Amino acid sequence: MSKNKQFVNELADIKTDFAQWYTDVILKTDMVDYGPVKGTMVIKPYGYAIWEGIQNYLDKELKKRGVQNAYFPLLIPESYLKREAEHVEGFAPEVAVVTYAGGEELNEKLIIRPTSETIICEMYAKWIKSYRDLPVKMNQWCNVMRWEKTTRPFLRTSEFLWQEGHTVQASMKDAEKDVQEMLKVYVDCLKNLMAIPTLQGRKTENEKFAGAVATYGMEAIMKDGKCLQAGTSHNLGQNFAKASNIRFLNKNGELEYGYSTSWGVSTRLIGALVMVHGDERGLRLPPNIAPIQVVIIPVASKVEGVVEKCLEVYKKLNSNKVRVKIDNSDNTPGWKFNEYEMKGVPLRLEIGPRDIENGVATAVRRDTHEKVQLNLNNIQKEVKSLLKDIQANMLKQAQDNLNNAIVETDDFDTLVKEVNNGKVALSYHCGDSACETEIKQKTTIKTRVIHSYDNTKRCVYCNKPSKYRVYFGKQY
Amino acid sequence: MSKNKQFVNELADIKTDFAQWYTDVILKTDMVDYGPVKGTMVIKPYGYAIWEGIQNYLDKELKKRGVQNAYFPLLIPESYLKREAEHVEGFAPEVAVVTYAGGEELNEKLIIRPTSETIICEMYAKWIKSYRDLPVKMNQWCNVMRWEKTTRPFLRTSEFLWQEGHTVQASMKDAEKDVQEMLKVYVDCLKNLMAIPTLQGRKTENEKFAGAVATYGMEAIMKDGKCLQAGTSHNLGQNFAKASNIRFLNKNGELEYGYSTSWGVSTRLIGALVMVHGDERGLRLPPNIAPIQVVIIPVASKVEGVVEKCLEVYKKLNSNKVRVKIDNSDNTPGWKFNEYEMKGVPLRLEIGPRDIENGVATAVRRDTHEKVQLNLNNIQKEVKSLLKDIQANMLKQAQDNLNNAIVETDDFDTLVKEVNNGKVALSYHCGDSACETEIKQKTTIKTRVIHSYDNTKRCVYCNKPSKYRVYFGKQY
Repeated sequence: MSKNKQFVNELADIKTDFAQWYTDVILKTDMVDYGPVKGTMVIKPYGYAIWEGIQNYLDKELKKRGVQNAYFPLLIPESYLKREAEHVEGFAPEVAVVTYAGGEELNEKLIIRPTSETIICEMYAKWIKSYRDLPVKMNQWCNVMRWEKTTRPFLRTSEFLWQEGHTVQASMKDAEKDVQEMLKVYVDCLKNLMAIPTLQGRKTENEKFAGAVATYGMEAIMKDGKCLQAGTSHNLGQNFAKASNIRFLNKNGELEYGYSTSWGVSTRLIGALVMVHGDERGLRLPPNIAPIQVVIIPVASKVEGVVEKCLEVYKKLNSNKVRVKIDNSDNTPGWKFNEYEMKGVPLRLEIGPRDIENGVATAVRRDTHEKVQLNLNNIQKEVKSLLKDIQANMLKQAQDNLNNAIVETDDFDTLVKEVNNGKVALSYHCGDSACETEIKQKTTIKTRVIHSYDNTKRCVYCNKPSKYRVYFGKQY
Repeated sequence: MSKNKQFVNELADIKTDFAQWYTDVILKTDMVDYGPVKGTMVIKPYGYAIWEGIQNYLDKELKKRGVQNAYFPLLIPESYLKREAEHVEGFAPEVAVVTYAGGEELNEKLIIRPTSETIICEMYAKWIKSYRDLPVKMNQWCNVMRWEKTTRPFLRTSEFLWQEGHTVQASMKDAEKDVQEMLKVYVDCLKNLMAIPTLQGRKTENEKFAGAVATYGMEAIMKDGKCLQAGTSHNLGQNFAKASNIRFLNKNGELEYGYSTSWGVSTRLIGALVMVHGDERGLRLPPNIAPIQVVIIPVASKVEGVVEKCLEVYKKLNSNKVRVKIDNSDNTPGWKFNEYEMKGVPLRLEIGPRDIENGVATAVRRDTHEKVQLNLNNIQKEVKSLLKDIQANMLKQAQDNLNNAIVETDDFDTLVKEVNNGKVALSYHCGDSACETEIKQKTTIKTRVIHSYDNTKRCVYCNKPSKYRVYFGKQY
């Protein structure tokens, strides 16, 4: 952070060592640091500001849909987790357990929530009596903990931040409607805010959430062709309602189990943002989510009038709600250019004596490296228009990458070869759980989301009649 | 939540059983419920919305002052807590301990953060190298855990939500400036947003934060005369910097330990809000923090035009950023009047056929029970003006209560009698720790905050020369 440090672009090569490039970028741009406990992370302000951007967007969209925020306890009695058979099987191996508190050994062990279905459903069972109480739609922004063996900041850490929404409806139809609507909210958030296109669809039985009737997911494709599950929306049917005894008096005066859903996105979205848009120079942040949208760099700042003009532009942009920073530190302009490129700032404005003479600022786009002269008199309008262009262009670039990553194939060897080569395969599958497991065990390749149902073809692996067309890929 | 339920005002009498009244109010207004683990709470949407109001206000104010949000891990290695001698003594008895994770016993026990000084300072030590890196000002919104024996929702729970800010400065003077500034932010928040006046000042040595050089607190006075510590701001001097080895190269090229501060407010503010403003009918919420500022209740709603007019008013208010709700459920108007009074909604609008005929709505203030006729044509302006009045009046009422609660006395028997009678005593004290401890042990009465320094008088208890004038009171 010292002002005289030399800029050295020490990022690993994105083409030959994507994993190291990722680690270099997130550490060197001050997004994150390793926490003292293995597998934990410290989200630094530059990373946290991105999470705040996601929170602001989603919180508004959820509230528009009648979702209310609430807060449920961190610690869950161990017995709760065990109520739903698949659920305990899915989460038991990764929980962190509190055994002592207040100087005494506890009678019942307490689990740090890996997700809150069990404790939220317990409360819902107490609150919900009649169909008039439905729907219930609550959300919480919180930390959760899943003790993972292999961790990477943002992508997989033992503690992470997320939102988890939980609804109860009076019918399966309404529950399914919630599940689809929330998935759409997520898809739109990634697209509009983060310029990340996704593949969406139902997960296979093998890959669904522990305890769900159906899980829908959205997959973003990283620059190395690997998939990242960016968000999920689960139809839990009556499974958790039965486990927690959520019953309501329906319109016919009969007691019926509620139909519940849950859905969430987490701080791993920050990792997706890095890996979808980054390039050999570092981060590239879409303007709508960038903590700093514009950086102003004075050139020949000792010349009279330069710093003043920069400040004037800063004020104009700032008062027009552009997130702008001015860097008039002692570092050289060249150092600053590199620094803010690495930090992914979408637009750089260089202002020097000659620019001022010509009544312009020199704007450099992070997405295309294009240089444009902007009229100083009308700078707020021109900057806003450029930012809009950059946002649209970055979405287009990401969409092109996604399209290019997909290979349609009916041949299993091709599937394996292409996926190992950084592609996502779109193939027919029989839908048989054992067949899917065999593919995974043999190749480490998993299904991602179902593209469409079609029983007229043959399974790419076992050649039995197909059930659906599904994406296969490697995953983060 | 069923629509045909009968309204029964089952609140305990606020005058004779304040404790039960508090519990009744927070449960019956759906602010909170008990969590399944002893001492935990579920913050329900009506309570959480108040927390969101506090977050929005404070987050903006902190950002204006250059504070950046970040997120530090929940789990702290046990050894960290032990680094600062007073700190470990203060917190060790109340921590919750994780001993197993991921199916294995841990090598080192992990503590769920009771506060994050130790882990944040560990990271600061890594990040801070030079005076050019200072100041560092970070804040996090998070959950913390302190295993308490006696708990009450919002006031004292094993898990609670808060913000904790942590700064490092290059000099004691600048650290002290942060401490004072943040205390002022809190005081203004309580006053402007929550209509809660406070007593502010330094805490005595006995009552300061474990590990601090100096703690400043603000005390709100509840309706029963008890004090509630509503927020604290700590000057940690170099104590934690030494424990964590936060050193920076100062302007003279010498290594120097940093000067750190920390400051926080928590969800216990929601409890303060209830106990400062509530009355025999339930909550009374100041408009600036009320989740619902105005409730519209149709009277004779089956008469043509009534519901339509209510909706029209709803839209007008809603589009003018008034937080408004319309209740056109089947419950009787009388039931609704009671319900929203209990929920503390600052303003009720009744609209019936006669009101419409006269071009008015009947407004009933929650703070004074006063009825006013508002012109329907100009309703958004009149409502806003009334809400402003209500806010100001509630602050005045609370300020009067606070003033009335304070008794100045030089006689110890009077001090004890008055405090036991629901007052706060303002008396001189010698500043001797042993003397203060003796008072506490004998009477359970503690010092709250120091009013002013004055060595010309005599200690109210031991009659030695005074050091300061200090508030004595019972506390939540």
